[in-house]
Amino acid sequence: MIDFGNLKYENGLIIGIVQDRASKEVLMCAYMNREALEKTVETGIAHFWSRSRQKLWKKGETSGHLQKVKEIRIDCDMDSVLLLVEQVGGACHMGYRSCFYRNLDGEVVGEKVFEPEDVY
Amino acid sequence: MIDFGNLKYENGLIIGIVQDRASKEVLMCAYMNREALEKTVETGIAHFWSRSRQKLWKKGETSGHLQKVKEIRIDCDMDSVLLLVEQVGGACHMGYRSCFYRNLDGEVVGEKVFEPEDVY
Repeated sequence: MIDFGNLKYENGLIIGIVQDRASKEVLMCAYMNREALEKTVETGIAHFWSRSRQKLWKKGETSGHLQKVKEIRIDCDMDSVLLLVEQVGGACHMGYRSCFYRNLDGEVVGEKVFEPEDVY
Repeated sequence: MIDFGNLKYENGLIIGIVQDRASKEVLMCAYMNREALEKTVETGIAHFWSRSRQKLWKKGETSGHLQKVKEIRIDCDMDSVLLLVEQVGGACHMGYRSCFYRNLDGEVVGEKVFEPEDVY
């Protein structure tokens, strides 16, 4: 097991990229601190560090759209991790399965899976 | 076309995640500034901002392992982009196709595609 103390945190944070394990769609990215990493491993549910709220953030706590973490990979520089997950519902607070639902032209190319007003 | 001036830069940077368009493997992530984004769109080759060297970084300039960018997606918060690419050779300077070549146990699970000493 890689020692989380050896990761290259910047201001206590590393980047967490979330990918759907089955479809391989990239769902989102967010920051994680050591506590979020430990909580993720311990519970099997993705946790991040909310910089805006300055607190541990269990993804899907309000919406129920949890991310069940099946595998974690670490990058060569040890400053980012890739979470391979089973996504319940959608990852994006806008109702899309992935936060990357628009292309550069601003066109919606992602799949909408819920209505935000039904959930939040 | 989304105006790059409207992206939510932090210290002038957003996160760029690179995914192989065909295999859907997540290859790496790195920071981009507005110039890197513009250069990427203009040339069709991925450019980033090297924070360690404090300069524009054309990925693969030394190794020849360029990333041909086929599509770019923007996330809901407009602070990260997903580059869908055709990767020449490997993305990782350690010789692996993806920088995320290890799991949490430290085991190599990624594919090695070149020997670094042959390339750098």
